[in-house]
Amino acid sequence: MIVLGIDPGLATLGWGVIESTGSRQRLLGYGCILTTPQHTLPQRLLTIQCEMNDLLTRYQPEEIAFEELFFSRNVTTALTVGAARGVGVAVCAAYTQKLFEYTPMQVKQAMVGYGKAEKRQIQEMVKLLLHMEEIARPDDAADALAIALTHAATGVSSSQFLMK
Amino acid sequence: MIVLGIDPGLATLGWGVIESTGSRQRLLGYGCILTTPQHTLPQRLLTIQCEMNDLLTRYQPEEIAFEELFFSRNVTTALTVGAARGVGVAVCAAYTQKLFEYTPMQVKQAMVGYGKAEKRQIQEMVKLLLHMEEIARPDDAADALAIALTHAATGVSSSQFLMK
Repeated sequence: MIVLGIDPGLATLGWGVIESTGSRQRLLGYGCILTTPQHTLPQRLLTIQCEMNDLLTRYQPEEIAFEELFFSRNVTTALTVGAARGVGVAVCAAYTQKLFEYTPMQVKQAMVGYGKAEKRQIQEMVKLLLHMEEIARPDDAADALAIALTHAATGVSSSQFLMK
Repeated sequence: MIVLGIDPGLATLGWGVIESTGSRQRLLGYGCILTTPQHTLPQRLLTIQCEMNDLLTRYQPEEIAFEELFFSRNVTTALTVGAARGVGVAVCAAYTQKLFEYTPMQVKQAMVGYGKAEKRQIQEMVKLLLHMEEIARPDDAADALAIALTHAATGVSSSQFLMK
């Protein structure tokens, strides 16, 4: 099963693709979709839309997992990050109904068995599970791989469909 | 010039299309894209994406004006409404670079010359300017027509491109 993990964001949208076969996980690719504040919001969202479509065509993932967004503070930021995530979700929804989401705490729990694990611990575990020589960079790409691994480890019966 | 006005929202996205020729405005169509909370967010965003594409194909607007979103309270609402707006903006950005935005106060100012006008006054002015027999329903569609009329009245030199 090919799983795409997404860490949504407007300036940096992390993505990671793994192939999961039973308890074995293989790295297929990872990276970031970057957009610059020197472009308008429409241009930036269009970039995300196009590059997300490219990713789906290139990797043909069977299931896609998003990190759930949490904001406690900035409503303006929530609007723009929500826009970036919305564009990503809509592109994926046109492609498959198998969309899932996990909170950061669920990712930590699945990766190191401890909901308050440090970011560095997660990154080391991603490296270990995917037999990588170095920690994935930037952080958003490593996060996206952790989300894909979390989905692979969670199992379909316990998976949470992306609802809201 | 054909102008599409958009009042973004997840459950109800209002739209209105006018043809503007000098100081004369003609109504071409209006309505709402409705999505139900009984569907998942991906399904709802996909509905918005598809119906927005249909609107662009049907009316081929030359310029598109959005209402700027303001939120002071609910961050969760900002995320989902931001997602709906983001999907609409991305669809339009693939179609034209002539995207504009207006605050509710700018719409009121343009429509009745008074930034704190009542909603009902705006709706009456939309009806009058577009020679409609009745006030446009629902409110979101009337708002979208007001946004399109505001853009037509503002003139390109004073228009505000949608930036963020």
